[in-house]
Amino acid sequence: MTAASLAKPRRPQAYHHGDLKNALLGAARELLERDGPATISFRAIARAVGVSQAAPYNHFPSKEHLLAALATLGFNELTDTQTAAARGNDSAASMDAIGRAYVRFARQNPQLYRLMFGGLIADWSQHEEAAAAKRRCFEPVQEVLATQLRARRQYTRATAEVAAIAAWSLVHGLAMLVIDGALQRNATADGIDKLVAQVVRWHIGRT
Amino acid sequence: MTAASLAKPRRPQAYHHGDLKNALLGAARELLERDGPATISFRAIARAVGVSQAAPYNHFPSKEHLLAALATLGFNELTDTQTAAARGNDSAASMDAIGRAYVRFARQNPQLYRLMFGGLIADWSQHEEAAAAKRRCFEPVQEVLATQLRARRQYTRATAEVAAIAAWSLVHGLAMLVIDGALQRNATADGIDKLVAQVVRWHIGRT
Repeated sequence: MTAASLAKPRRPQAYHHGDLKNALLGAARELLERDGPATISFRAIARAVGVSQAAPYNHFPSKEHLLAALATLGFNELTDTQTAAARGNDSAASMDAIGRAYVRFARQNPQLYRLMFGGLIADWSQHEEAAAAKRRCFEPVQEVLATQLRARRQYTRATAEVAAIAAWSLVHGLAMLVIDGALQRNATADGIDKLVAQVVRWHIGRT
Repeated sequence: MTAASLAKPRRPQAYHHGDLKNALLGAARELLERDGPATISFRAIARAVGVSQAAPYNHFPSKEHLLAALATLGFNELTDTQTAAARGNDSAASMDAIGRAYVRFARQNPQLYRLMFGGLIADWSQHEEAAAAKRRCFEPVQEVLATQLRARRQYTRATAEVAAIAAWSLVHGLAMLVIDGALQRNATADGIDKLVAQVVRWHIGRT
């Protein structure tokens, strides 16, 4: 679906149940990135997909449930991109690669990233699938950190937790500064990739 | 001014020029923290302060200029609280203390903090005073980092810059995760202070 396709309603179509859910999520994701979360409405996504205004309610009890489903998509993609980045690298190189993949995801999906980690969804415990996807999102970094800590004989559960929160804070802060335009001097994709690698290496003590 | 004082307009008052500007900023800051940046209007702040609707235009050419003036206040306060935190500590203890002071400022002024470092003001170069105050805001950390790097014979301009961006990303990420409610397990002030100290110490390699 392109931005142009949101401009006019489609003719009513017949969808299989799962296909319609995916089509609604696709339209919502596109609206989210284009205009932000405030403008997403069941009416707008039904119109974009070419179904009745009531149709989204068969799949999402509320707008917050729709946003949580979008966030779940995002957490799963972010987990996959981190896992792919870590594959085949030693643990130090993995941290670089994961950091670059993480910030790149945020740059390519800034509104989705803000939805995933900002305060718009106040209580994730109301959205079990999203909360589980969010937890899985931290596993690639937690695994690499655990390997590093064990190699240095520093591993304790408490140390691993602090190290994980530090790593998350670092990449989250960097991602937010990048998507909010606070680091404009490195605004090319290559410049940001290089900066992320330098910052992550500095953090893990490889420089 | 209390939240209740915003509920009803004041009787028209006479202000000296600078006093009125400060009164308008005070009302705007209160509205910002209470309802977010979208709801701030010259009409609302004029009403809160008890002056005509035209009065704010004598001090701020546009709403963005008013927001930039609020951000300037915020940058100056954040600089002062970091400078005070660093005073009398050695450089490693300074980093802990600065980190705690930084995140505490964000917790106590979440909307102001988002205004200062989020993307709402797109082009700081349009607001010279704010841009200068923003640059000064990084000086306390830059000074401590330079001292540490020189003590370790690691100081180069490039290293100092990466170290500064890493430190900023770390505390910014942590501050955003805290004010967006993503670290609820440590939601007491003491718990967050302790967590910030642990994360900063882990980052600078003191654990």
